[in-house]
Amino acid sequence: MRVFGIDPGSERTGYGCVETDGRRHVLVICGAIAPPARAPFPERLRVIHAELGRLLLESRPDTVAIENLFHAVNVRSALKLGHARGVAMLAAVEAGVPLVEYTPAEIKRAVVGYGRAEKRQVQHMIQLLLGLAEPPEPHDAADALAVAICHVHCEAHLRAVGAPAKQRLPRSWRQVRVEDLRR
Amino acid sequence: MRVFGIDPGSERTGYGCVETDGRRHVLVICGAIAPPARAPFPERLRVIHAELGRLLLESRPDTVAIENLFHAVNVRSALKLGHARGVAMLAAVEAGVPLVEYTPAEIKRAVVGYGRAEKRQVQHMIQLLLGLAEPPEPHDAADALAVAICHVHCEAHLRAVGAPAKQRLPRSWRQVRVEDLRR
Repeated sequence: MRVFGIDPGSERTGYGCVETDGRRHVLVICGAIAPPARAPFPERLRVIHAELGRLLLESRPDTVAIENLFHAVNVRSALKLGHARGVAMLAAVEAGVPLVEYTPAEIKRAVVGYGRAEKRQVQHMIQLLLGLAEPPEPHDAADALAVAICHVHCEAHLRAVGAPAKQRLPRSWRQVRVEDLRR
Repeated sequence: MRVFGIDPGSERTGYGCVETDGRRHVLVICGAIAPPARAPFPERLRVIHAELGRLLLESRPDTVAIENLFHAVNVRSALKLGHARGVAMLAAVEAGVPLVEYTPAEIKRAVVGYGRAEKRQVQHMIQLLLGLAEPPEPHDAADALAVAICHVHCEAHLRAVGAPAKQRLPRSWRQVRVEDLRR
């Protein structure tokens, strides 16, 4: 199974693709899309959308996992983030890849085991889980890999309890799949 | 000059295209894109993006004008709106059409002459300015036409004072062009 994680942002959009047999996870690709700093906002969106489309075509994931935010510093930053997240979701749906969403707390809980873990702890766990010599850089890439690994763990959990027994799942796991596009 | 106005929203995205010789404005097309009510959110975004792309190809505008919001009811609604607005901007930039943005107050001021005008007043003025038998329906279409007409008035003003004399413009007009992609 291949999972492509996205950590959207208008200045930097992290991405990271992981392949897994359920036990061992291997890094396929990771990085960050950083549109030219002086590019107008709509042009940034075009770059994010086009790059993600290209990467999804290249890495052919089974699922796209994206960070879901209900909270933001303020309305203005929420609006800005929404734009970047919107074109990222569009790239996934255009590529025909099912999309799942996880909140930051769910990602941290799945990766570190603690919903309020710090950025560094997440980066460290990603390094360990993928057997990397160094923590993935930039941190947007690590965040994207964290979303992907969160989905891998969630899927393993679902399989263990016997999907589609959603009712038997703890509430926190059910909340996880806010938008399940699986057909 | 043809201006294509967009009033973005994830449930309904209004659009309206106006052709003008600077004095008389003629309605080219207007309506609202309403993705299926039960469609998952990413699918809604796909519909909005695809429909806007098709409409822009059909109506071949010189400029796309879009409502700019800095304020929203709350962070959650701002995030949601941002997604729809992001894919709308993407459609414009992909169509290679310059994009301009106006705030709701600027639109009302340009159309009705008063920044806090009510929805009905805006609809009534749109009807008068375009010489329509009835006010445009649904109201999202009227709002999109208002953005388009706001840009037409702003352009007329710019021409009257002799562009590119931006410094001579009143501050409110200069603020209007937040993201001027004109090359």
